Amino acid sequence: MAQADIALIGLAVMGQNLILNMNDHGFVVCAFNRTVSKVDDFLANEAKGTKVVGAQSLKEMVSKLKKPRRIILLVKAGQAVDDFIEKLVPLLDTGDIIIDGGNSEYRDTTRRCRDLKAKGILFVGSGVSGGEEGARYGPSLMPGGNKEAWPHIKTIFQGIAAKVGTGEPCCDWVGEEGAGHFVKMVHNGIEYGDMQLICEAYHLMKDVLGMAQDEMAQAFEDWNKTELDSFLIEITANILKFQDADGKHLLPKIRDSAGQKGTGKWTAISALEYGVPVTLIALYASKIISYAQGFMLLRQAATEFGWTLNYGGIALMWRGGCIIRSVFLGKIKDAFDRNPELQNLLLDDFFKSAVENCQDSWRRAVSTGVQAGIPMPCFTTALSFYDGYRHEMLPANLIQAQRDYFGAHTYELLAKPGQFIHTNWTGHGGSVSSSSYNA
Amino acid sequence: MAQADIALIGLAVMGQNLILNMNDHGFVVCAFNRTVSKVDDFLANEAKGTKVVGAQSLKEMVSKLKKPRRIILLVKAGQAVDDFIEKLVPLLDTGDIIIDGGNSEYRDTTRRCRDLKAKGILFVGSGVSGGEEGARYGPSLMPGGNKEAWPHIKTIFQGIAAKVGTGEPCCDWVGEEGAGHFVKMVHNGIEYGDMQLICEAYHLMKDVLGMAQDEMAQAFEDWNKTELDSFLIEITANILKFQDADGKHLLPKIRDSAGQKGTGKWTAISALEYGVPVTLIALYASKIISYAQGFMLLRQAATEFGWTLNYGGIALMWRGGCIIRSVFLGKIKDAFDRNPELQNLLLDDFFKSAVENCQDSWRRAVSTGVQAGIPMPCFTTALSFYDGYRHEMLPANLIQAQRDYFGAHTYELLAKPGQFIHTNWTGHGGSVSSSSYNA
Ligand SMILES: NC(=O)c1ccc[n+]([C@@H]2O[C@H](COP(=O)([O-])OP(=O)(O)OC[C@H]3O[C@@H](n4cnc5c(N)ncnc54)[C@H](OP(=O)(O)O)[C@@H]3O)[C@@H](O)[C@H]2O)c1
Ligand SMILES: NC(=O)c1ccc[n+]([C@@H]2O[C@H](COP(=O)([O-])OP(=O)(O)OC[C@H]3O[C@@H](n4cnc5c(N)ncnc54)[C@H](OP(=O)(O)O)[C@@H]3O)[C@@H](O)[C@H]2O)c1
Repeated sequence: MAQADIALIGLAVMGQNLILNMNDHGFVVCAFNRTVSKVDDFLANEAKGTKVVGAQSLKEMVSKLKKPRRIILLVKAGQAVDDFIEKLVPLLDTGDIIIDGGNSEYRDTTRRCRDLKAKGILFVGSGVSGGEEGARYGPSLMPGGNKEAWPHIKTIFQGIAAKVGTGEPCCDWVGEEGAGHFVKMVHNGIEYGDMQLICEAYHLMKDVLGMAQDEMAQAFEDWNKTELDSFLIEITANILKFQDADGKHLLPKIRDSAGQKGTGKWTAISALEYGVPVTLIALYASKIISYAQGFMLLRQAATEFGWTLNYGGIALMWRGGCIIRSVFLGKIKDAFDRNPELQNLLLDDFFKSAVENCQDSWRRAVSTGVQAGIPMPCFTTALSFYDGYRHEMLPANLIQAQRDYFGAHTYELLAKPGQFIHTNWTGHGGSVSSSSYNA
Repeated sequence: MAQADIALIGLAVMGQNLILNMNDHGFVVCAFNRTVSKVDDFLANEAKGTKVVGAQSLKEMVSKLKKPRRIILLVKAGQAVDDFIEKLVPLLDTGDIIIDGGNSEYRDTTRRCRDLKAKGILFVGSGVSGGEEGARYGPSLMPGGNKEAWPHIKTIFQGIAAKVGTGEPCCDWVGEEGAGHFVKMVHNGIEYGDMQLICEAYHLMKDVLGMAQDEMAQAFEDWNKTELDSFLIEITANILKFQDADGKHLLPKIRDSAGQKGTGKWTAISALEYGVPVTLIALYASKIISYAQGFMLLRQAATEFGWTLNYGGIALMWRGGCIIRSVFLGKIKDAFDRNPELQNLLLDDFFKSAVENCQDSWRRAVSTGVQAGIPMPCFTTALSFYDGYRHEMLPANLIQAQRDYFGAHTYELLAKPGQFIHTNWTGHGGSVSSSSYNA
């Protein structure tokens, strides 16, 4: 009876596709779902003709598993995960493994990891990325938690993960406790940024450069042969090209921004010869900043939670399989290979000079968009961050002085570092100074 | 013995100044502090010759208070507040009042309000703003919590608060539970934004316009006679003018941004004739956006927590006494007087046309700063927000399409609103769609 290599609970889009992926790689999967009827539906349809087995109860599911038992949850994040854990624990033995592949909050994962460790169950919180396509044909997997589980799940995880280069899997052990879900969270932030950046570029091309949809599709297709080579650029080109059965573009039917015509359209010729490359460069520079910020966040978490994170490894996990997959992530991997202690991506020679070379065009694109009234929250935030970063000192002297003026906050003189001084700016304030600024 | 009108615990900068303010208005205050020696220090120095009395213990303090007892805490936010509440409760009677004037988190205030209500104690969480100066000569006070306390503290609170116009106090009842501290939190966000916006303007003037410190002081002094008339503009002028005993400006000694020279300096003449007004306008427009966002946040909280907030009243509370005090806040009060149901400040005719009139100069200033490499996180974020807001539809169609492409998220056609469709963009994805987008 105990013939299944692994069980998966949660037969929505992610779970179903991940099961079929594991099946393709020769693993016998036992499927289960809260609404049990979905198990039979799945076996009768999507999983027809595969080696997938089903269970009508958790008890039956557990009885079908080889030991140590491996159970992946792919259910709605939150209470559903705790509910299933609670029901599973009495059915499991010491050394059995529960893996949460949903988008759980990393603090929940840390809590579950500790609770289950105390009960002898090995808990793994794994980021799973790549959506439907990824789950089906090779996701990016970011497992973290109780490392004792790793040898027992490594073959399955690396087997089904996306591969890049000469077959390197986009999956490796990430780190302690909630580290896998933390890395997934940062990934999602970067993904959101990538999508927003592409939309800002699209908006510039459409409303400022006045480009037709086919011209934009062509531009994104061309960009996909440059440093920007990535899944999101590729699908943007495909979306722009996609036509309905009626031979008309689908995208404008989904939603339109016709309300906005742009105030400063360039001519079609200058758009293609000049505007498009400038937009490309602005997008590239903003993307570098966005990724630099993502890795800064990882470094901060590692310090705060005492985790050891393999930054190059993380870049490699995102290199393929997931939505942010790109050639660019290989460059990040290279940077951390050159210097595993790299404090900031912007200090790496490659990225440093890449951004420097982008500067003029980047500023020109942003400034054109600003004049034309294109909302560019990500382009402008990235540029502000960069301009702040490259300034050795910002005019924070004024903020220090303002705080001391109204809050007796004290300030430091350049000539007397370490000494904190309060000035009675108005001549009638008191001389008490505040230990901590709070306005 | 019970001669004191109110007790105040916490003899740091805020507490001391608030006591002296209450004393000036004829109230007898009993002072107490964790480190009891500070009580005697205070009585022997700052409070010498006043009617302020001291206590050596909480018990003694409570014994000196008229009933219902009124006790203000001005201690470090967090555990210190809970500690004092715990020690006070056994010493108090039903109907006594504890007021927390520190910068407490509004959720803590809601919790304390509920806990103390169950014990018969009336709890008030009051935002107190204006720093040292404000506390001493008239702060902005934002009390919320158990409204039964209000009649007992109104005279003191409105007595010591700042006054504007024909003596209107910058203090009124804010709302339920943690509403007072929530409003203070939004105030602080706005304050931070105001300071940052002024710094960005200063940075532009210094490094792009190449203005000398006295020229900048003059510009801020002139601006203080315009729509920007406000405390922060005024103190910025004073800070820029302020000279040390040696007759040299103090500000550049505090900190310097000499590392940055700017790449696009305008000439001195065009700076004053053209650059300064453009900078002023950019600052004004950004400020309108910042305040519009602050009031959006208040409206959201009111909906979420079921509070009733008096938006015009809040504008009036900030109109004087606090660091963000300005003529501008009177305009906001006017807008809510015209329409108490105003959904967004940017929909009010006055502010709508104010921003519209600013647009050209605002864009020019931002675009010049972008070209010159000045970090302008607040100017650019405000402009992006505005450009997003005034677009009826953003090109979110691309984001919808991307999400559906990789996550089977489904999208809505313009022609078939309410119907959610999934397209198999690649020809090989499945047809399962995800109930909630999670990448
Ligand atoms: N969609 C994506 O692109 C994507 C990508 C990466 C990660 N994820 C994450 O992967 C997980 C699964 O995502 P999904 O989109 O496939 O599905 P989903 O819509 O997030 O969740 C549906 C699944 O959760 C189960 N479920 C919901 N509430 C439950 C409860 N209270 N108790 C027990 N089971 C409950 C459902 O069971 P019933 O059938 O009984 O309702 C169903 O199996 C989520 O955590 C999601 O955030 C999704
Ligand atoms: N400074 C401002 O501009 C400003 C403006 C508005 C609001 N506020 C808020 O007003 C409150 C007071 O601010 P502040 O700057 O005057 O003083 P503070 O430095 O924030 O706090 C010092 C006071 O808190 C007491 N305290 C600290 N930790 C304590 C603990 N664990 N138990 C008991 N007492 C403790 C100190 O007592 P000891 O003397 O015994 O150490 C002292 O009386 C704070 O909540 C602050 O955030 C400040």
